[in-house]
Amino acid sequence: MITRRTALTAVAAASASPILTSAPSFAAAPPLAGTQAPSFFRYKVGDYEITAVGDGFLQRPLEGFVRNVDVADVKKTLVAQGLPDTHIRVPYTTLVINTGSKLILMDTGNGEFAAAPTTGRWMANFRAAGFTPEMVDTVIFSHFHGDHINGFRKKDGTAMFPRAEVMVPEAEWAFWMDEARMNAAPEAMKGAFKGVHFAFDPVAKDVTRYAWGKEIAPGITTVRADGHTPGHTAFVIASGKETMMFVADVTNTPILFARHPEWQVIFDMDPAQAILTRKRILDMASADRIRCAFYHGPFPSAGQVSRDAGGYRLDLIPLQDAI
Amino acid sequence: MITRRTALTAVAAASASPILTSAPSFAAAPPLAGTQAPSFFRYKVGDYEITAVGDGFLQRPLEGFVRNVDVADVKKTLVAQGLPDTHIRVPYTTLVINTGSKLILMDTGNGEFAAAPTTGRWMANFRAAGFTPEMVDTVIFSHFHGDHINGFRKKDGTAMFPRAEVMVPEAEWAFWMDEARMNAAPEAMKGAFKGVHFAFDPVAKDVTRYAWGKEIAPGITTVRADGHTPGHTAFVIASGKETMMFVADVTNTPILFARHPEWQVIFDMDPAQAILTRKRILDMASADRIRCAFYHGPFPSAGQVSRDAGGYRLDLIPLQDAI
Repeated sequence: MITRRTALTAVAAASASPILTSAPSFAAAPPLAGTQAPSFFRYKVGDYEITAVGDGFLQRPLEGFVRNVDVADVKKTLVAQGLPDTHIRVPYTTLVINTGSKLILMDTGNGEFAAAPTTGRWMANFRAAGFTPEMVDTVIFSHFHGDHINGFRKKDGTAMFPRAEVMVPEAEWAFWMDEARMNAAPEAMKGAFKGVHFAFDPVAKDVTRYAWGKEIAPGITTVRADGHTPGHTAFVIASGKETMMFVADVTNTPILFARHPEWQVIFDMDPAQAILTRKRILDMASADRIRCAFYHGPFPSAGQVSRDAGGYRLDLIPLQDAI
Repeated sequence: MITRRTALTAVAAASASPILTSAPSFAAAPPLAGTQAPSFFRYKVGDYEITAVGDGFLQRPLEGFVRNVDVADVKKTLVAQGLPDTHIRVPYTTLVINTGSKLILMDTGNGEFAAAPTTGRWMANFRAAGFTPEMVDTVIFSHFHGDHINGFRKKDGTAMFPRAEVMVPEAEWAFWMDEARMNAAPEAMKGAFKGVHFAFDPVAKDVTRYAWGKEIAPGITTVRADGHTPGHTAFVIASGKETMMFVADVTNTPILFARHPEWQVIFDMDPAQAILTRKRILDMASADRIRCAFYHGPFPSAGQVSRDAGGYRLDLIPLQDAI
């Protein structure tokens, strides 16, 4: 009697041998690939589709990175999370928000001004995600550090997002566009001022300068988050019954500064205020169970923050093949 | 005087306005994409390049998934990790090991036999990673459950990897190829036996049946890991000074069963032995700081296991744009 199994087996047996004997032979394995998949990941917030778009990372020595603790403590925190204790990798992750009627970009990455070959990958990842610069309706900036604004303008001075309206924190604008302050700034800081002018001077009369506590685009509300810079801003993003926050540089890497909100990264311009802001925002996200997207977390740099042993733990959204 | 800044500004200003006014206008944002980046991720172990290749996930109800605890406890464990408590997503992640001279595939995913549209994506991801089935020199199986072996043969009975030699655990072979045991099996289990025959009957005379504790390919040593199935096997993968383990189904999802090694997933055939194995392997990985790749973890399904509050925590390798 031919059962289903024996029938299947017969089919398989009949076809297998010729294939095995007629296969081409290779001398060796293919060369090592050395490359990763494009760095984008999508998730929904209500009706909105959010796409995290990565711009690679910068690898930094541990020495001098955290102002107020010993390197030994930094190492301990890394090892406790299964990470190497020889360096820290600081990634960059922007958000593209498709509301269904507008395509909104939150911060722009390093663009053509990448400081290392491990970064400067934003445009390739953005295009791999199916976007083009012409699609962007609105660019919203959290603050004016180079790794957030440099992608806004090409090296030749032309606009990267030709159709986009531009929204900036008014306190940030006031600080960086103050001519007297730039002239009085120490030499090491003058480049930051120049970068801001390079990005924004050509559109200075067109930018929208937003205040805190305002809904500046459908479902997107600004939240005071100063300390990292004078106008640094976080955002509540709400659609339908769902809410998330884009917390930008409320922490540098959450691996260190969510775990230890009282640690001071060298980039915080007002460290004491940055700590107050960090604790307030992370406490809100933890207590209200609001998903947070960070700018400098491990990809996809978004997940749930929870109070944990004197600081906050970040459980990343699991990567998966569907949304 | 023309400073560097004013020169840059002049260039930028001259070019910005025409671009802003001549841009095409769009009626609306692009349609929601609804798709993710291809699911592969690479890391090195010594000179070997490991590529995790995903096959999507199956979403399951919580009820009935863990044999020996209440659903309320399962929910608590999910929420503590920032996850929804309405279901569990069980992903599939195979490994491709490029030793430089051989391309070795560890388990094969669901192939053409996917049970849901969120899975059955393995071949697309494998090709996106730059591989073709003809490149595979060796397929090594951890055990004979369908989600590990079904990708080995097409529905029409032909071989998916036409050149590959095949290595299987001898205890697994003895169990599933025992005709008397299949005939005595309950009806619900007969499909599993038939699947094993469908996959392996055509190559039965050619497979290498391996024992535990043996180096079966350069740097790849088998480790006894029975309980999940009678011949279930883990692997130490060593190259140069680096070592990792592929632990396959030592846990189903580590989110539940590494956290709680004494919990019994419904798929463990000998639950008591599976718990002993789970504790032994995870304890070794934690004590010796050996990176583990799981088959059912959140992508990329590999990272460092650490003892934590009565169980084990898995810190995934951070995704990043370089290797």
